[in-house]
Amino acid sequence: MDQSPKSLEHLVQALRKLPGVGAKSAQRMAYHLLQHDRDGAVHLAQALQSAVQHVQHCELCYTFTEQTICATCADPQRDQTRLCVVETPSDQAVLERTGAYEGLYFVLQGRLNPLDGVGIAELGLTRLMERAGNGVIEEVIIATSFTAEGQATAHVIAQGLSKRGIKSTRIARGVPAGGELEFVDLGTIAHALADRH
Amino acid sequence: MDQSPKSLEHLVQALRKLPGVGAKSAQRMAYHLLQHDRDGAVHLAQALQSAVQHVQHCELCYTFTEQTICATCADPQRDQTRLCVVETPSDQAVLERTGAYEGLYFVLQGRLNPLDGVGIAELGLTRLMERAGNGVIEEVIIATSFTAEGQATAHVIAQGLSKRGIKSTRIARGVPAGGELEFVDLGTIAHALADRH
Repeated sequence: MDQSPKSLEHLVQALRKLPGVGAKSAQRMAYHLLQHDRDGAVHLAQALQSAVQHVQHCELCYTFTEQTICATCADPQRDQTRLCVVETPSDQAVLERTGAYEGLYFVLQGRLNPLDGVGIAELGLTRLMERAGNGVIEEVIIATSFTAEGQATAHVIAQGLSKRGIKSTRIARGVPAGGELEFVDLGTIAHALADRH
Repeated sequence: MDQSPKSLEHLVQALRKLPGVGAKSAQRMAYHLLQHDRDGAVHLAQALQSAVQHVQHCELCYTFTEQTICATCADPQRDQTRLCVVETPSDQAVLERTGAYEGLYFVLQGRLNPLDGVGIAELGLTRLMERAGNGVIEEVIIATSFTAEGQATAHVIAQGLSKRGIKSTRIARGVPAGGELEFVDLGTIAHALADRH
């Protein structure tokens, strides 16, 4: 719309910055908010400002928290000898939902991606090494993704830990639960074979 | 995440209200903003507030504008004898981009959808009849969608206009430009046949 109001145009541009939102979706969102849900728009604006103001990184594990130390790190019931390294707070949430892990976490700032300027420094690996070398941690479980970047990240972490004499393990790669061999890709089956126990 | 910070949780909930955004996308957006684009989050909050504050409906055509009368309605170069009825400001924008229409617009507040509580009153049809009956308009072009609701809306508008002795036309339904008959659905071909000229 050539004669679209300026503040509407700005809103569409700002919405386009959201991941997975293109020009059409952004316009649809802006029109929807202004036509049908102005309260929702005000509420979203407040939620954004409040989150930016209050949410910070936990000083120990770098997940999102409103305190200095997050609830998981502050919980004395958790197994203090195990540290699970994940790429993002969402990955941490997924692991928590399994209910199969009782230890602590360390949340990386993403994964190695030199092309996008995410190198070893940006990942917070120095802080991970400090944390893992605190004398209490006995095992570091590396739970980064099984993508090329995730694997590279896992490799760098495992190397760093082994240099410092800290034991590290990697979560298993194999056939998913409920998976029929016929429909699983060959790479996964090859890994499941190699990692048999 | 059971122990997710409250303001992060609120942000995810507020983002879920956007059209086309589910639980997973909302979480991804919130994490992205907090991890990688806090400036973007602040900017989006400001854009939302500014849009809610400044964008209103044009008093003549009910499209979005920051003035009392929108730029299109205020333009003396536009053909004042033709009025095109569309469902949304996006539809108006699409028609404008064709460059094939020189007249004025009337933007409905959606389309008839009794199940969602959008009846004749909510659509702004009374205001449309007032506008169309101003003595200057010679033709009302009904450009609502060719969905069931859009068709019902077009029918109600055409009836109302005919009662008041105002001429109305409907945009043509037929085979799309560049469309090969073989791949066009039968309903469309049947209509293209019936509407041959």
